[in-house]
Amino acid sequence: MAKVSMAGVGEFCHHYPRVATIVTVHAKGKDNAMAAAWHSAISINPPIYGVSISPRRFTLELILEAKEFGVNFMPTEQAELIASVGGSSGREGDKFQRFGIVKEKPLKTSVPILKDAYACYECRLMDHKTYGDHVWVVGEILASHFEKELFTGKQVLNLERVSPALYLGAELYTIPAKDTIRHLDRKVYGKR
Amino acid sequence: MAKVSMAGVGEFCHHYPRVATIVTVHAKGKDNAMAAAWHSAISINPPIYGVSISPRRFTLELILEAKEFGVNFMPTEQAELIASVGGSSGREGDKFQRFGIVKEKPLKTSVPILKDAYACYECRLMDHKTYGDHVWVVGEILASHFEKELFTGKQVLNLERVSPALYLGAELYTIPAKDTIRHLDRKVYGKR
Repeated sequence: MAKVSMAGVGEFCHHYPRVATIVTVHAKGKDNAMAAAWHSAISINPPIYGVSISPRRFTLELILEAKEFGVNFMPTEQAELIASVGGSSGREGDKFQRFGIVKEKPLKTSVPILKDAYACYECRLMDHKTYGDHVWVVGEILASHFEKELFTGKQVLNLERVSPALYLGAELYTIPAKDTIRHLDRKVYGKR
Repeated sequence: MAKVSMAGVGEFCHHYPRVATIVTVHAKGKDNAMAAAWHSAISINPPIYGVSISPRRFTLELILEAKEFGVNFMPTEQAELIASVGGSSGREGDKFQRFGIVKEKPLKTSVPILKDAYACYECRLMDHKTYGDHVWVVGEILASHFEKELFTGKQVLNLERVSPALYLGAELYTIPAKDTIRHLDRKVYGKR
């Protein structure tokens, strides 16, 4: 095979799939939720997480007000909800009411924890910086919530029990394969 | 189900799976490569990409010197290589030679493009910032390279033809499922 090479990135979908999340916030007496696939762990100790958000998003305005946000990891059964919160704005009304989103109690912040998430991080805003047309929002994870029986003892997702929603770009979603898991220890392979 | 709630994040694996990449750099007359699963798109226009790198990594030293880096997206057949570059340091010797990594020519920078990658971004360093125990490295994507026949017309991965290596945490790898793809248009679902 030979690669196509080009300046820039074209449709910018090569980097998918990515776990599709719902970012939540509570501010100005309101809850809000948005879809986000551009997110990453940043640091282990302290645990820090980042998410890229368009400045057009109402959620960003609320996060900068509240100085906290939640990152909710959703199973494939909730992919329709991800598309719903991704295609609507909290400026038009309460998405929690409209889409029947059920909340659970946070531990360290006031961010909504989604009942249907298999895991959620509560983050306190540490920093935000504009890069190009988005804002990179960085938060320390103060607390985590997860469905214990969906994870192994090492807190790795048990794919026999839960399938995270993976976004592929172009409004397409898939899940990870269950039957292809391999253990490749870097300590062993690094010595080849 | 009821969630377990805790301060902090425990093993910090809830956020996986993530596409496992190999970050490359050329500086001081040397090529180097490292494994990175903590990465994200940040901006569309201009296209900007970020990756979290430990300050202990030789690759970070070289990126700060070269002011550029490559992000290589690898198929599951190369997961052993990801584990190999992840478990070794370029300070101990040339990983390209040791692991038989074949390079292709970059377009806009001097970063190594991996022949076995299905896609690669060439990035010019824009910013780097320490958050906790890692450095968040941000670069503008100046050029992209990809195996055209492995993507659809919209530059979405064709999972019938290529399976990206997905890292699950705890040295485990899987791939996306091919037979579960759904189209959920946010414009439609946002109007529910």
